[in-house]
Amino acid sequence: MRVIGIDPGLRAMGWGVIEVQGSKLLHLGNGTCKSIGSAPLAARLHDLHRQLTLVFERFRPDHAAVEQTFVNKDAVGTLKLGQARGIALLASAQAGLEVGEYAPNAVKKAVVGVGHADKKQIAHMVGIHFPGVAFDSPDAADALAIAICHSHHAQSAGRLAAALAKAGA
Amino acid sequence: MRVIGIDPGLRAMGWGVIEVQGSKLLHLGNGTCKSIGSAPLAARLHDLHRQLTLVFERFRPDHAAVEQTFVNKDAVGTLKLGQARGIALLASAQAGLEVGEYAPNAVKKAVVGVGHADKKQIAHMVGIHFPGVAFDSPDAADALAIAICHSHHAQSAGRLAAALAKAGA
Repeated sequence: MRVIGIDPGLRAMGWGVIEVQGSKLLHLGNGTCKSIGSAPLAARLHDLHRQLTLVFERFRPDHAAVEQTFVNKDAVGTLKLGQARGIALLASAQAGLEVGEYAPNAVKKAVVGVGHADKKQIAHMVGIHFPGVAFDSPDAADALAIAICHSHHAQSAGRLAAALAKAGA
Repeated sequence: MRVIGIDPGLRAMGWGVIEVQGSKLLHLGNGTCKSIGSAPLAARLHDLHRQLTLVFERFRPDHAAVEQTFVNKDAVGTLKLGQARGIALLASAQAGLEVGEYAPNAVKKAVVGVGHADKKQIAHMVGIHFPGVAFDSPDAADALAIAICHSHHAQSAGRLAAALAKAGA
């Protein structure tokens, strides 16, 4: 199973791709799609979509996961984030994938073990998962954390389905 | 000059295309891209993008215009709207167009003559511009109003540029 995690943002959209082999997680790549702040909004979204589509073509993931966006900031920030998030979801759907959405606390819990952790702790724990891997940006590390979170949930769901099938349910 | 106006929304994305010939405005088409509320969010955005891209291919507008979104509602609503708006901006940029963005008050002023008007008044005034034209939805009427607003601004900008060129500025 190959999972892409995406941390959406208008200025920087982090992505990370992992391969899940049983309980083993392999790092395949991470990076950051960027847009130029001075460019018109539509051009920035176009640019992000193009870069992200190339990532999908390069890695051909079978699963995509995106963090449920924090909407506690100001409305203008929420709108911007929504626009970037729409691009991330669209690129995933265009690649034929359903998108797992996870609350920030679920992502932190999956990676750090508790639901409250700052960006530094997350990057540190993602680094322990993938020794020697350099992160392109904090957003790319976050994206890998989202991919790890998805792999845990997908595996639990898979085990449950297998158990139900075995029980003849 | 051919202008598409778009009124972004996740459930219903209105569009309207007009042809501007001097001071004359001709209605070419209007409609509503829809997504199914029970479908996953990424699939809904994909569906809207596909429908809107077909509209661009059918009418081949040279200008696109979108309303500046009202961000005074709740954060969850703002995020949803942002995601749909991102799709509208992306489809425009993919068609090679810059996107004019207009505040709701500017759109109302261009169509009704004052900056405060409800949806009914807007639809009524758009109907006077295009007698006999049936609107697919209130969102489609709004989209036509946005296109009308853009045509006014683009014509003013054109006249200014022509005057400056004539003055040798």
